[in-house]
Amino acid sequence: MGGNSRPGRTGLWLIGARGSVATTAIVGLAALRSGLVRPTGCVTELPAFGSAPLPGWDDIVVGGHDISVADLHKTADTLVAAGLLPAGVVSAAGSQLSTVESELRPGYDPATQQGDQAHAVTRLAGDMSAFARRHDLERVVVVNVASTESPWPEGAELQDLAALESALSEGTVPASVVAAYAAVQADCAYVEFTPSTGITIPALRKLAEQRGLPYAGRDGKTGETLLRTVLAPMFTERALAVRSWSGTNLLGGGDGATLADPDVVASKLDAKSRGLHALLGGEVAAPLHIDNVPDLGQTKVAWDHVHAEGFLGSPATLQVTWSAYDSALAAPLVLDLTRLVAMAQHAGQRGPLTALACFFKEPFGSGGHRFDHQVRGLHEWVRVTTDAAGGGR
Amino acid sequence: MGGNSRPGRTGLWLIGARGSVATTAIVGLAALRSGLVRPTGCVTELPAFGSAPLPGWDDIVVGGHDISVADLHKTADTLVAAGLLPAGVVSAAGSQLSTVESELRPGYDPATQQGDQAHAVTRLAGDMSAFARRHDLERVVVVNVASTESPWPEGAELQDLAALESALSEGTVPASVVAAYAAVQADCAYVEFTPSTGITIPALRKLAEQRGLPYAGRDGKTGETLLRTVLAPMFTERALAVRSWSGTNLLGGGDGATLADPDVVASKLDAKSRGLHALLGGEVAAPLHIDNVPDLGQTKVAWDHVHAEGFLGSPATLQVTWSAYDSALAAPLVLDLTRLVAMAQHAGQRGPLTALACFFKEPFGSGGHRFDHQVRGLHEWVRVTTDAAGGGR
Amino acid sequence: MGGNSRPGRTGLWLIGARGSVATTAIVGLAALRSGLVRPTGCVTELPAFGSAPLPGWDDIVVGGHDISVADLHKTADTLVAAGLLPAGVVSAAGSQLSTVESELRPGYDPATQQGDQAHAVTRLAGDMSAFARRHDLERVVVVNVASTESPWPEGAELQDLAALESALSEGTVPASVVAAYAAVQADCAYVEFTPSTGITIPALRKLAEQRGLPYAGRDGKTGETLLRTVLAPMFTERALAVRSWSGTNLLGGGDGATLADPDVVASKLDAKSRGLHALLGGEVAAPLHIDNVPDLGQTKVAWDHVHAEGFLGSPATLQVTWSAYDSALAAPLVLDLTRLVAMAQHAGQRGPLTALACFFKEPFGSGGHRFDHQVRGLHEWVRVTTDAAGGGR
Amino acid sequence: MGGNSRPGRTGLWLIGARGSVATTAIVGLAALRSGLVRPTGCVTELPAFGSAPLPGWDDIVVGGHDISVADLHKTADTLVAAGLLPAGVVSAAGSQLSTVESELRPGYDPATQQGDQAHAVTRLAGDMSAFARRHDLERVVVVNVASTESPWPEGAELQDLAALESALSEGTVPASVVAAYAAVQADCAYVEFTPSTGITIPALRKLAEQRGLPYAGRDGKTGETLLRTVLAPMFTERALAVRSWSGTNLLGGGDGATLADPDVVASKLDAKSRGLHALLGGEVAAPLHIDNVPDLGQTKVAWDHVHAEGFLGSPATLQVTWSAYDSALAAPLVLDLTRLVAMAQHAGQRGPLTALACFFKEPFGSGGHRFDHQVRGLHEWVRVTTDAAGGGR
Repeated sequence: MGGNSRPGRTGLWLIGARGSVATTAIVGLAALRSGLVRPTGCVTELPAFGSAPLPGWDDIVVGGHDISVADLHKTADTLVAAGLLPAGVVSAAGSQLSTVESELRPGYDPATQQGDQAHAVTRLAGDMSAFARRHDLERVVVVNVASTESPWPEGAELQDLAALESALSEGTVPASVVAAYAAVQADCAYVEFTPSTGITIPALRKLAEQRGLPYAGRDGKTGETLLRTVLAPMFTERALAVRSWSGTNLLGGGDGATLADPDVVASKLDAKSRGLHALLGGEVAAPLHIDNVPDLGQTKVAWDHVHAEGFLGSPATLQVTWSAYDSALAAPLVLDLTRLVAMAQHAGQRGPLTALACFFKEPFGSGGHRFDHQVRGLHEWVRVTTDAAGGGR
Repeated sequence: MGGNSRPGRTGLWLIGARGSVATTAIVGLAALRSGLVRPTGCVTELPAFGSAPLPGWDDIVVGGHDISVADLHKTADTLVAAGLLPAGVVSAAGSQLSTVESELRPGYDPATQQGDQAHAVTRLAGDMSAFARRHDLERVVVVNVASTESPWPEGAELQDLAALESALSEGTVPASVVAAYAAVQADCAYVEFTPSTGITIPALRKLAEQRGLPYAGRDGKTGETLLRTVLAPMFTERALAVRSWSGTNLLGGGDGATLADPDVVASKLDAKSRGLHALLGGEVAAPLHIDNVPDLGQTKVAWDHVHAEGFLGSPATLQVTWSAYDSALAAPLVLDLTRLVAMAQHAGQRGPLTALACFFKEPFGSGGHRFDHQVRGLHEWVRVTTDAAGGGR
Repeated sequence: MGGNSRPGRTGLWLIGARGSVATTAIVGLAALRSGLVRPTGCVTELPAFGSAPLPGWDDIVVGGHDISVADLHKTADTLVAAGLLPAGVVSAAGSQLSTVESELRPGYDPATQQGDQAHAVTRLAGDMSAFARRHDLERVVVVNVASTESPWPEGAELQDLAALESALSEGTVPASVVAAYAAVQADCAYVEFTPSTGITIPALRKLAEQRGLPYAGRDGKTGETLLRTVLAPMFTERALAVRSWSGTNLLGGGDGATLADPDVVASKLDAKSRGLHALLGGEVAAPLHIDNVPDLGQTKVAWDHVHAEGFLGSPATLQVTWSAYDSALAAPLVLDLTRLVAMAQHAGQRGPLTALACFFKEPFGSGGHRFDHQVRGLHEWVRVTTDAAGGGR
Repeated sequence: MGGNSRPGRTGLWLIGARGSVATTAIVGLAALRSGLVRPTGCVTELPAFGSAPLPGWDDIVVGGHDISVADLHKTADTLVAAGLLPAGVVSAAGSQLSTVESELRPGYDPATQQGDQAHAVTRLAGDMSAFARRHDLERVVVVNVASTESPWPEGAELQDLAALESALSEGTVPASVVAAYAAVQADCAYVEFTPSTGITIPALRKLAEQRGLPYAGRDGKTGETLLRTVLAPMFTERALAVRSWSGTNLLGGGDGATLADPDVVASKLDAKSRGLHALLGGEVAAPLHIDNVPDLGQTKVAWDHVHAEGFLGSPATLQVTWSAYDSALAAPLVLDLTRLVAMAQHAGQRGPLTALACFFKEPFGSGGHRFDHQVRGLHEWVRVTTDAAGGGR
C-alpha cells in the first residue's frame, strides 16, 4: 500500500453486465485501450488526476452478472442502431467483447429464485472470487448498474448480520442487497450506481468496514440532477428565492420501461427530490415526473422550469432542456469510479468514500449536494491520496 | 480603519442616476430601510456576510449624475407600469425619492459638451466632493450604471496622466472615463458596472492606487453570463467537450435601444464571449446576438443552445431560456458593491478589488470566470477582512 | 329572427361569477364599453365578423351565481396584484363592477346543500328568470366558468327527464348539471366552458332542443390544446409520423388548487388527450401532467415535446413552451360566445352549435379537432347566418 | 393529356445533384422503389392523393448537374455518418446510386466559367435533352437544390429575352438563371427549391409560359418557416396581437457554411421575413439570425420566441425549438414536387403552379402564406386535376 506505487490489475465486476450502461462501459474501455477514441467524458483523465495512482485502462479486467442472456455483441449492435455507439468502435471492440462475454455469469433473479437467497449470495460471491483468482487480480470493484428496484422500506432495519441472514432465509431481500452481500463476502469493493438498496443497509456497511473494504454510492448523477446541483447554488449565492422547480423526464429504452412501474419510479423521484430540497429548503414546490416514452429510445430528455423571486419581489424564470444518451453519460463514470475506488483501496481506505460525492445523487456522508463543493472535495482527496502514495503514477 | 469598527456614513454616487438600474436601486434601498421588503437578491444579506463590517442600509446616502432630466418619480412610475417595481413600494418610497432627486446633478453629455472635457472632470468632481461634505460622509462610492458606450480602442494607450490630460484637451475621452477621473480626483472609490472604459485605463488605475482608493469592475454579471459561468464548469468537470455555445438575447427598454447600435453592442458581445472562451477554450463555436425587441420592455430573454460531445463521441445538448427584469437583477448588486467597496476602503484596501470578481463579466485580476471559484474567493476575502476588523458589525 | 335585424339586449349569466375568468370578463366588458381598451383577444371583433348581427358590448347585461361571497372588486384587485389586470382599467370599471355585484346570487354548493337538488334547480332558474325580467332582456346566455368537477361516469345514463329527476331526488347530480338544468328551465341558452358535465347529458340536450334553445361546449380551448390542434395537422399534412407528444402544464391560482385533486385533474387530462389522439391516431405515446405550482399565480406554463419520424426514419423534435395568464385567454372567448350564441338564438337556431367548435377542447358534433377546419366552419356559419339575417348590424 | 391516363416516365434533373438534399432524395427514391421504407414524409402518399394521376416511384429517372465531383456513394456515406441516412438503406441502394451517378454531368460553375454563359446555357440544355432522349422520357422536371446564391438585385430588370441574352454575353447572370434558362430551352418544367433567382425573372417566366411549361417555387418551406406559417394564423384567428417574433437558426453542414456569407444569408433572411410580415402585418419586431455552427452537422436547430398581447393588454409568450435534419425534410418534398409538376404538365397546365404554394417560403401567386389555406388550395387543385384526368391512377 503506497510508497510511490499504483494499483495493479483491477477487476470491474458489473451487476447488470448486459444492460446499456454496462455495454457502453465495456465497449468504451475496449476503445480507450486501443487508443481508438479520446477519453471524452472520463473525469479521471482530466489534468487534475494526472499524477494520481490510478489503474491504467489496460489494468482493468471486466466480468459480471446479469439475469439476461442476450449476447453482448447483440446489445452493442442495438446501441449502434439507437445512435448511441459508433459502428466502427463496436466492430473494432469485437474480440474484447467476446473476452468479456466469457466472463459473464447468470445473475440472481428474484422472480425465479425467491426463497433461496442465502444460496444465491454464496453463488454470486463464488463467481466474484473465481474471477479474481482466474485473472490474478489485486482487487475487484463490484458496480451495480442493474435496473432500479422498488424502494425497500425495510432497508433501515437490517442493523446486523443476524437480521440480514434471517431476512435472506425468508427470501425478502432485494436483489441489489444479495449482490452487495456477495461482493463483501468475496472481499470486493462496491459501488451502488443505481437508487437501489445495495450496500446502504447498516449490516452491510459495518461488514464492509470490518473487512477493510471501501464502497461508494448511490445513484449516479448524470443529467438533470447534475444540472440541478449546479444551478441551485447560483440562485442561493445570488440570494434569489426559488419558489418552484418543476421537472419532467422523458425516456425510453429499458430504463423507461422499468420506470413505468409506479413503485420503481418512486425510488428515483425520491432521490431526485431530496437533493433539491436540501439545496433550496423545503418550501419549494417541486413537482417531478418521469415518463416512459418508448420512441425516444436511449435518449433522455429533461425539462426543468424554475421560478424564482428576486429584488423587490420581481420574478425570474429559467427553463432548461437537457437531451442526451443517458448511458453514454453514465458509462465513463463507471470506469472513473472503478479507478478511484481501486486507488482508495490500494491506499488502505475503507468504508464510505465520501470524497466521491460528486458522482452520486444521494452521496454517502454529509457533504451536501452542491456540485462545486463536491468537486472541490474530490480534488482535495485526490491530491492528499496521491501525495500519500508518494506522488504520481 | 479596523479595530472592531464598521464603516460609517457612506455615499453612493450613481453615474446614470435616472436610469432603470439606478432607479430600482434607489427605490429598493428606500424599501429596505423601511423594512417594507425582504432583502431578496441582496448578496450581502446572506448568512456568510452576517458579521462583516458593512455599512447598514441606513448609513447609505444616494446622489448622482445623469444627462437626462426626467424626474425619478416618473421613471419609477414607468417601471411600475412595466411590471418591474411594485406600486406599493414606489408610493411608500415617495419622500425618499424626493430626497435623492435633490441630490442629482447634470451629467457630462459628450453630445453637447465635446471639447470641454477637462472642465467637465472638474465640475463632476466638485459635485461629488460637495455631496460628501454636505452629508458629512466618511466616503463615497461612485458606481457607473449609465448606458453602455462603444468600445474605445485607444483606452489602453493612456498610460499616464499626461496622456489622459492631453486626450481630455482634445475632447476624445469617453464619458465613462470623464466620470471615473472625476471620482478619483474627488477621492471616491469607483465601480464600473457597465462594459464601458471607465477606470480601466492604466492612467486612472495608477492614480486610484496612489490615492489609496479601491475600485471594482467591470460589467455586472447578472443573467446569461452568470448562467454560462455556472454551467460551463459542469461540462469541463465532467470532461464533456463543448463544441458550440450559441446564444441570443432579446431585450427592450433603454438598454435594448442603446444596444441596437452595432458599435455599442460590440462592447457587450466582446465581454460576453471572452469569458466563455476562457472557460472552454478557443475552439468552441459561439455565435451570440443581442436584439432590440422594444415590446419586451424591461424584460430580458436569453436563449442558449449548447452542443457537447461526450463518451465515444455521443452528443448532448442543453438549452437554457432565462427571462427576467435585468434591472431588478442588477440593482441589488449595486447596493451590495457599495457596501463591500465601503468595507474594503474602511479596511484600508486600495486598487482593484479582485475578490469581487463574482459580480462582473470581466473581472479585474486573473482569478478566472468560474462562478464557484469566484464565490469562494469572495467568502474568503470577507472572512479575512472581517477578522482583521475585529469581527463583526 | 331575421329581417336585417340584430339581437337586442342580451343577458350573460355566469356560473362561477366571482372567479378569475368571470371577473376578467366582467372588467373587460366594462372596459370595452368605455372604449378604454382595444378589443384584442376578442374573436368577434375580427373583420370576418364585421357585418354579423351580434349584440354590441352595450347590449350585454351581466349577472350570475357563485358559491363564494368574495366581493368582485376584491377579486379584481387580486388580479391586478397578480399582474393579470391593469390597475387603471379596474379602477375605471369600478361602478360597472358594483352594478354586476348587485346582480350576483348565491350558487348551488353541493358541499352544503346535498339532497336538496330539485329545490336548487328551481331556485337557480328563478334567479335567471328574474334577471331576464328585471332587465327586460330578449335572451340570457348562461356560461359555466365554475371550477372543474370530477368526472361523472353516470352522466351518459341520464337519458330522459325522469332519470334526471330521480337522480336529483337522490342528490347525486353534479353542480354543473344542476346549473344547466336550471338554465334550460329558465329558457336560457347554455355554454359549458369547463370540462364538467353540465349540459352534456342526453336528458338536458333533448330538453334544450325541445325548448328551442341553443347550447355550446365543452371546455374552452385556450392554450396548450389550442396549440396542439394547430400543430398536429402540420405534421399530418407533411406526412410526418408523430411518435410521442409529451406535455406538462404548470399552473397556480384557484385552478391549480382545484386540479391538484387527482379526480378532478382526470377530467381535464381526458379532454386534452382525446383530441390529440383523434388528430394523430391512437399509437402516439402522450404522457400529460398538470401540476399545481402555487407560486406561478395566474400564469399557466405548458411545455410540449413532440418526437416525429420523417423521411427514411429521420427524427424531428419540436419543443413548445407557452406562458400566459389563462384567464385572460378565456375571458374574451366568454364574451365572444355570448355574442355568437345570442346571434344563433336570434336566428332561430337550436340544439348544439357545432359551428362553434373552434372554441372548445371537446366540441359537440363530429367536425374534428383541427383548428383550421374549425375556423373555416365558424366563418362559413357566420356568413350564412349573417346573410339569412339580411346582412349586417 | 387526360382521358383517365397518368403521366408516364418522368425525368427528375437535379441542379446540385451531389448535395445533401439531392443525395437524400436519390437514396430515398431507391428505397421507396424497393419497398424498403414506408413513404413517411412524402405528401403525395397521403390518402388525399390516392387517386391522383401521379407518376409512380418506378416511373422516375434521375440525373443532374453539379459543380462538385464527389461520388454520390461517398456523399451518402457521409450522411450515414452524420446520422441522417440509415446505413442499411444506403447499402441496399448501392446499384441505383451507381445508375444515377452515371447520369450526372458537370454543372455550370460561375467561379471558373464566367464570361461564357451563353455557351453554358447551351451545354446544360443539351445535357437535359440528351437525358430525356436517352431514357425516352415523356417529360423532365428540373429541380434546383444547389447552394443558395447571393440576392441578385438586377433580377427584376430582365424583362425579355433580349435583355437576358445581353446579360449572358456580359457574364453577369447568376448560376441559377443559367440553369433555369437551360431547362426552358430543353422544354423542361422547373422547380426553384432554393431562394435563388432561377426562373423568377420575367424573361424566363414568359418564355416558359410560351413553351407550355409549368414551373413552381420558390424556396422549400421545411422547418422554421413552416412552423411560422402554421402558428401565426393561430394568433390572428384568436385576435391576439403579435408584438415580436424573434428567431435564431443554427445549422452546420454545407448549408451552414454557405450561409455564413453575409450576402447569401441575406437572401434567406429576406425570404423568411417577408412571409412573417405578410401574415402578421408590418409592425411586428422580427429579428432573425442564421448562424453557421459546424459541429451541428446536418442538424438544424431553430428557436423562435413570440411575444403577443391579449385581452386587456395581458402578455402571452410562445417559445418553439425545432430540431431536425433539414435535408431529410426537404428531400421527400423534392420527390413530391416532381410528381405534382409532372401531373400538372401531363394535364396541360403551364406557367406558375400557384396551387403548390404550401411547399414554398415565397410561393408564386398571391394566395398568401397561411399553411392551412395553402393546403386547402393544394387539395382542391389535386381534386380538380384528378377529375379532369378521368379520375385515378
